[in-house]
Amino acid sequence: VRPAPPVSSPPALARLDLQPLGRRISVGAGSTVLAAAQSAGAGIIAICGGSGKCGTCRVRLVRGTLTPPTDAEVSVLGAGALADGMRLACQARLAGDAEVDVPAGSVSAPQRLALEGEGVAVVLDPAVEAVDVRLVSPGPGDLRSDAARLLDELADRRHDDVAAALEVLRSLPPRLRNQGWAGRAVVSRPVRGAPELRALLPPGATPLGLAIDLGTTKVAAYLVSLESGEVLGRSGTMNPQIALGEDVLSRIARANSSATSAARLQAGAASSIDSLAVELCGRTRCPPDRIVDAVVVGNTAMHHLLTGLPVRQLGEAPHVPAASAALEVLASELGLQRLGSASCYLPPVIAGFVGADHVAMLLACGMAETRATMLALDIGTNTEISLVHRGRLRSCSTASGPAFEGAHIGEGMRAAPGAIEHVRYLDGRFSVQTIGDLAPIGLCGSGVLDAVAEARRAGALTERGSLARDHRLVSSTPDGPACVLVEGKNAGHGRDIVLRRADVNEIQLAKGAIRAGIDVLLADAGLAAGDLDEVVVAGAFGTYLDLDSAMAIGMLPRLPHGAYRQVGNGAGQGAVQLLLSRRQRVLAQQLAREANYVELTVRRDFADRFVKAMHL
Amino acid sequence: VRPAPPVSSPPALARLDLQPLGRRISVGAGSTVLAAAQSAGAGIIAICGGSGKCGTCRVRLVRGTLTPPTDAEVSVLGAGALADGMRLACQARLAGDAEVDVPAGSVSAPQRLALEGEGVAVVLDPAVEAVDVRLVSPGPGDLRSDAARLLDELADRRHDDVAAALEVLRSLPPRLRNQGWAGRAVVSRPVRGAPELRALLPPGATPLGLAIDLGTTKVAAYLVSLESGEVLGRSGTMNPQIALGEDVLSRIARANSSATSAARLQAGAASSIDSLAVELCGRTRCPPDRIVDAVVVGNTAMHHLLTGLPVRQLGEAPHVPAASAALEVLASELGLQRLGSASCYLPPVIAGFVGADHVAMLLACGMAETRATMLALDIGTNTEISLVHRGRLRSCSTASGPAFEGAHIGEGMRAAPGAIEHVRYLDGRFSVQTIGDLAPIGLCGSGVLDAVAEARRAGALTERGSLARDHRLVSSTPDGPACVLVEGKNAGHGRDIVLRRADVNEIQLAKGAIRAGIDVLLADAGLAAGDLDEVVVAGAFGTYLDLDSAMAIGMLPRLPHGAYRQVGNGAGQGAVQLLLSRRQRVLAQQLAREANYVELTVRRDFADRFVKAMHL
Repeated sequence: VRPAPPVSSPPALARLDLQPLGRRISVGAGSTVLAAAQSAGAGIIAICGGSGKCGTCRVRLVRGTLTPPTDAEVSVLGAGALADGMRLACQARLAGDAEVDVPAGSVSAPQRLALEGEGVAVVLDPAVEAVDVRLVSPGPGDLRSDAARLLDELADRRHDDVAAALEVLRSLPPRLRNQGWAGRAVVSRPVRGAPELRALLPPGATPLGLAIDLGTTKVAAYLVSLESGEVLGRSGTMNPQIALGEDVLSRIARANSSATSAARLQAGAASSIDSLAVELCGRTRCPPDRIVDAVVVGNTAMHHLLTGLPVRQLGEAPHVPAASAALEVLASELGLQRLGSASCYLPPVIAGFVGADHVAMLLACGMAETRATMLALDIGTNTEISLVHRGRLRSCSTASGPAFEGAHIGEGMRAAPGAIEHVRYLDGRFSVQTIGDLAPIGLCGSGVLDAVAEARRAGALTERGSLARDHRLVSSTPDGPACVLVEGKNAGHGRDIVLRRADVNEIQLAKGAIRAGIDVLLADAGLAAGDLDEVVVAGAFGTYLDLDSAMAIGMLPRLPHGAYRQVGNGAGQGAVQLLLSRRQRVLAQQLAREANYVELTVRRDFADRFVKAMHL
Repeated sequence: VRPAPPVSSPPALARLDLQPLGRRISVGAGSTVLAAAQSAGAGIIAICGGSGKCGTCRVRLVRGTLTPPTDAEVSVLGAGALADGMRLACQARLAGDAEVDVPAGSVSAPQRLALEGEGVAVVLDPAVEAVDVRLVSPGPGDLRSDAARLLDELADRRHDDVAAALEVLRSLPPRLRNQGWAGRAVVSRPVRGAPELRALLPPGATPLGLAIDLGTTKVAAYLVSLESGEVLGRSGTMNPQIALGEDVLSRIARANSSATSAARLQAGAASSIDSLAVELCGRTRCPPDRIVDAVVVGNTAMHHLLTGLPVRQLGEAPHVPAASAALEVLASELGLQRLGSASCYLPPVIAGFVGADHVAMLLACGMAETRATMLALDIGTNTEISLVHRGRLRSCSTASGPAFEGAHIGEGMRAAPGAIEHVRYLDGRFSVQTIGDLAPIGLCGSGVLDAVAEARRAGALTERGSLARDHRLVSSTPDGPACVLVEGKNAGHGRDIVLRRADVNEIQLAKGAIRAGIDVLLADAGLAAGDLDEVVVAGAFGTYLDLDSAMAIGMLPRLPHGAYRQVGNGAGQGAVQLLLSRRQRVLAQQLAREANYVELTVRRDFADRFVKAMHL
């Protein structure tokens, strides 16, 4: 019996690759990208419900074929964005296999962690190397010390002149005997100086690294295989220092108040790292002593509080760091009790308010080696801004306040379930999208930014930020006029969710500070915004903010969408890369050493630019 | 009026230089050296009261003129010693100016500390250098970190690439501000690797070093100016670890019993160093933070217990050290709380029972660079012996027990006031010399050694160490026969001070072990005792033992007196030299690395030699 000849049939299914999520799905040809993504559980924001009006479901076609742009896409995106490959997921349908890039700003909050895989690719070249060793045991004819026995063996394997810290030496005798005089000697591979023995792991064990982004509010940790480069686990926790001061300045004041307080702040930071290490090791079933290298990034105050460096001079003009070069210390010097004899690398800081986390973010987004003219922002209570042009880096820090974290906003809240993360003015009313699709209870940073931009677009706000009292969406309340975003009947707590003059003012101050910082750096380099090839926006808020809103209110310069890149936790990503690549450590030091820090408070043009940038 | 012409008259006074005490005195010509020395308060032992019989007041003429040897000198010293310049201080009279060397064995105990100035001379070349700096203070136009500001200044002064430990960085901000942005930067001058910033001292301050000889029983400390090399003060204390175990083996067992015990032993050693540092600084009015470098020498067990290295494998065959190379750590890594951010150097150890103190002693007596055939002994509970011949070093350790510290001896005691330090058989009876010239209450090590030698010479002991029951000086007591050294009426406590068979046996075991060790090393090198150019005997007991007694009972080989050198605390002296000379650190590492450790317990010839060496 001969088999039936193969029959070619038209593909009923099309393949859709969603990047950077890395999700590949098969869907019926002709589905919208939005429907396909939703069927795969990948949340793309679509405030208008897929009617092509709100523009929040923006994606970019990387490869393959989609149906031609609809009228709605032409209207919402404009010809420039369409030429860039930008499409609306609710309008574009699969005309065959396709790969689309979903920008961070188009992804709904629950997927946030999935975004952290961005950043430049690094060649795996970690600061340590595991060398398999098998030693002869001591006997009457060979009475070398344990350390000499191991170091001689390493020298035989072309690892000469390896030094060993006392802490590592202390662990050798029981380990060598328990492991039958065999194991994996982990040797550092320093860019300069002599190699050091870091640990002796059991035979076959994989050396691990721990990358930490020590934020003022949150601490993020990544457990990484130093042999494969794979991120084995990630976790986060609140910074326990919050109990001793909400923000950086209050913690500096607290540390200055007494040595005990400084010690408590230090111990708080250390304990959060310890507990994350234990959690990640437990979850991945890796003994904590496999962690042989750690990288910690944080702003200059967090960096100093963790390392026990004095912060008094950070809190007083001219706010200089105690130390700025990269540090490489033993974890024990930082009071880290769960990291055994691991070493701990802290990248350099640029200035008192431009820290190692910013340096890490700049590395992660390729700023150290780019030939482009590139701007990068870490938006937070302080916003660090860096501009690279013809290889020269300028950096500044601007006090943008906590409004984008939901603080100082009447209806503000953190980016938690029920927070309005996006607002659109559609068909004469405000529509909102909340985190977790719950009934709205308040506004997080990206929501309040949208609210201001959309209220302005609706005509409910003036250019100076006053509420237009006679506007249809502006109500009179006992506390003065308010723009109602969500009526009480639709809110989770039953009360109207409104935008008031004071809220708008906070946003004006914040965005004015950021834009003035950007403009000063551009002016210093003799550039205009249009000269920028790329703008990287990092941090939780920076990632989820709506670029149109940010450009509409003048917080960010008006540029094609394709010029923007929203990178998530760039600092954490940079920390992982610094674990995996010695070259990144070299670049970090170069970057920080060559950075031109621009102190805004002494720039005559800053105040003028700030006042001007406050306009909506 | 013309002045009277000058009249030349015979010198009424002669000048006498007493070495190594460094005392220069003027006395009437014709005085005996003994009388002259006594008039100057320099105690020379003279058991026979200056009658030329006991030979304990032996000195050597270095320069100048003494009266010709008397018959007593010819009889007691012999032609060989006289030809070597040896004289009896009670017989020799000043015939003009003279310089005499008073061997350690001829000096009475109260001067012991004065002997510690011996050792080879070193060129002042410490491991740190003080660089005067004056910095511009930070301002809007210069926002460098404190550390970068200082390190840039050092780079301008040709100290490039200086690193700084975190602990030093922590101290910089307050210091720079308190000192008005000036001071003395103390920079390490490592033999290999990058220089490190150690401290920032106030302008004009002298950097100090602390040398520590961490003995099992006593801890000696020397405070040294690293600019002049001068020893500013010295002090000693008991090792508080004694509370946790009398000897090395009991402390090892204790450390193995629990981590808490190991930590207490560590803390005990550290606290003794801390308290000596505080005492010396207080006495010399130097702030403890001027101490920027420390050297600690000790036997391998003390070295491990202080550094927190495991000792379990030291207590079990084959007794290997955890680590043997030189260590350079921060004082804080050793729990030293009073030494600020000083670094701490510990020389290498040679084997489990040949420690860093022995290495230091070998350096102090020039063993590292000699071309002579030279033997050096550190006599203690364990006696370390090293032989260098044609540049090759052989070392061993032999269990000589505590008899020479007065332990396990019926009438034994430590070398304290009232202890018999020397015994002579004169005119048919025993004469004794005590420490402090008090009524005798017991025997210290050198006293019991003399007692055995003199009892043997008197015929009261047989070659095998039995008491001759029928000898005039041997009494029958309820505990068996005893040789009476001091009758009760002359003793401080009213009881007879006697030597028993068991005491003699202890000394036989001790001296047999030492001599067998010497003989094994000589045999290993194919040498006989007569091939030795020099023999160095170190340690408190080794310094004050009577060489004739030690040779008489066969503990030390019979050689001309001039071949022997008794050097006091050679380990402490070596520690001081390691503070003052980088070259000594290089030599220490070479010495330890190239040492050939001879394990006596596996040598077939050791037992035979031991049995033979027990004979008196």
